[in-house]
Amino acid sequence: MAATIKDIAKETGLGLATISSYLNGGNVREKNRIKIEEAIEKLDFEVNEVARGLKTNRTKMIGIILPELNNIFFAEIITELEDVLRGQGYAAMICDCRTDEKREEEAIDFLKRRRVDGMIIIPTGKSGRGLQEVMDAGKPIVMIDRRIRNVRCDTVLVDNRGAAEDAIRRLLDRGHRKIGMIAGAEDVYTAEERFQGYCRALEAAGIPAEDSLIVRGDYTIRGGSRGIKELAKRNPDMTAVFISNYEMTLGAMIELNELGVRIPEEMSVIGFDNIEFAKACIPRLSIVTQPTKELGRRAAELMLKRLEEKERTEFETVRLATRFVEGRSVCCCPDGERGL
Amino acid sequence: MAATIKDIAKETGLGLATISSYLNGGNVREKNRIKIEEAIEKLDFEVNEVARGLKTNRTKMIGIILPELNNIFFAEIITELEDVLRGQGYAAMICDCRTDEKREEEAIDFLKRRRVDGMIIIPTGKSGRGLQEVMDAGKPIVMIDRRIRNVRCDTVLVDNRGAAEDAIRRLLDRGHRKIGMIAGAEDVYTAEERFQGYCRALEAAGIPAEDSLIVRGDYTIRGGSRGIKELAKRNPDMTAVFISNYEMTLGAMIELNELGVRIPEEMSVIGFDNIEFAKACIPRLSIVTQPTKELGRRAAELMLKRLEEKERTEFETVRLATRFVEGRSVCCCPDGERGL
Repeated sequence: MAATIKDIAKETGLGLATISSYLNGGNVREKNRIKIEEAIEKLDFEVNEVARGLKTNRTKMIGIILPELNNIFFAEIITELEDVLRGQGYAAMICDCRTDEKREEEAIDFLKRRRVDGMIIIPTGKSGRGLQEVMDAGKPIVMIDRRIRNVRCDTVLVDNRGAAEDAIRRLLDRGHRKIGMIAGAEDVYTAEERFQGYCRALEAAGIPAEDSLIVRGDYTIRGGSRGIKELAKRNPDMTAVFISNYEMTLGAMIELNELGVRIPEEMSVIGFDNIEFAKACIPRLSIVTQPTKELGRRAAELMLKRLEEKERTEFETVRLATRFVEGRSVCCCPDGERGL
Repeated sequence: MAATIKDIAKETGLGLATISSYLNGGNVREKNRIKIEEAIEKLDFEVNEVARGLKTNRTKMIGIILPELNNIFFAEIITELEDVLRGQGYAAMICDCRTDEKREEEAIDFLKRRRVDGMIIIPTGKSGRGLQEVMDAGKPIVMIDRRIRNVRCDTVLVDNRGAAEDAIRRLLDRGHRKIGMIAGAEDVYTAEERFQGYCRALEAAGIPAEDSLIVRGDYTIRGGSRGIKELAKRNPDMTAVFISNYEMTLGAMIELNELGVRIPEEMSVIGFDNIEFAKACIPRLSIVTQPTKELGRRAAELMLKRLEEKERTEFETVRLATRFVEGRSVCCCPDGERGL
């Protein structure tokens, strides 16, 4: 017969309350924790997490919603997230919504019915439909990478605007004036931030941002391939390009490769994310990188903090810095004036 | 007040048994299904999946254990898996065990306590400790990509041996005789299969496999970088190399790039996985690709089939074919005889 909580009490000599507290994730003295764990091991006591969930109204499950698992930036964040959460006994229920707003709403609903204790979301949609309800039900939400205007919650972001501004400034410093940008979709928070950084850097240098130098690549490989082709066609005098996420960078490199464009002699290139890919490029690609691990870790920590707090405190926004990794894909503009 | 199952009965005019059957995933006539779903929508009835799990002894959760989420091959499989499962109302509880056998055992245990209905695993360890117990408890297990000797269950594999054999044969056909291989760890199922394919192709051509031409790169970027360096140092006469997974291919390309080795003139290269990366390489890389989506889909289907069957039928093994995608990274061996 399966061991019960009473058997654990007999074995350890501890009270039922202490053991129950341990089983429900409460605080138990270190000495007692060890005793209980030894007894659990010895008696092969099995905790039924489902039953426990009903009793404590805690399922120890965190829902995670993201646009695409099959995207290195997101995958790195989730890897870290899941690790930190599981280390604290929380299971991660991961829903990939394939960058589809409707699927995202379904995922929120799905996780609500699963009675997750909280949700961590890298949002796809702009409306945040369903999220406010989750919070109203007292379940914390942590948002990563993107903000949604109507939803106030803990958020972990990177400084996208500053990152793009810095990248463009580096191109300007090398004398480039006709700088193309492959941006993400207009309704994506990070895409807009990066686009604003591009505009701001040009503006500071007294150069108007030209429509013909901007294409939207929707953060996809295909978008990157098409984008660079379009830019090159429209702007024969373009000498540099800034590509604002990894998948588009990959797509643009595939296309530049196909077209036989020499980098940096014929085109200076600054990409985004994935340092390993950048190093495998010929020549090595200069890129902006984001602190993916830290994004995941900080989000998990914010969630765990919320789950433990007795009274709700102010929402936090953590903003992390990016890094620029210099490669050999940028040269001085062949016919530009150097410096500003 | 929240709507109850009785309210649904009143609204639809159907019996409680029918509604209960619907809610517990049983068969319900299409006409009734629509009625019930409309009523659920109208009354804002919320199904408590946790409570339902206790009652039916089904949690509608599938545990997924994999070595690394942050690996494009695995991420693509999981994306598809999760999609198919969620489409059938199953939540995926994903555990990344960081290629650590101990963490894998912990994950199995963790998911057991969560009372998942079944587990889909891309194994890291060789022992399969804990898995037999899960099956003995009547919960199905589906294994992807790798086999474990002692565990008999449904399995979805790719033809790794054939893939490697084919790649090596292509190098032999171009006159190469000194062909290096960057293999995975000896205790990894796919690594051994690919290694055997390499040996078999050489054997068929009457060429003995030389120890100095084989390095183990452990399926990591770093292993690939070190591996190619080691191979080149040991074998100045090596004219071609076969790299047997994506991460090692990436690492080797980074290193070849650093060393300034011209591909294919100085070194013919065949890599593995990730067609997009292969296209971004200069020159375009010839690679072996695996049917990741199909691996995920087939595994999910096997799981769903098991969950529905009344009597246990024979275990199935599905073996999928790989594909060779020709790039421009292989040339005729400068001083070899052509053809065999």
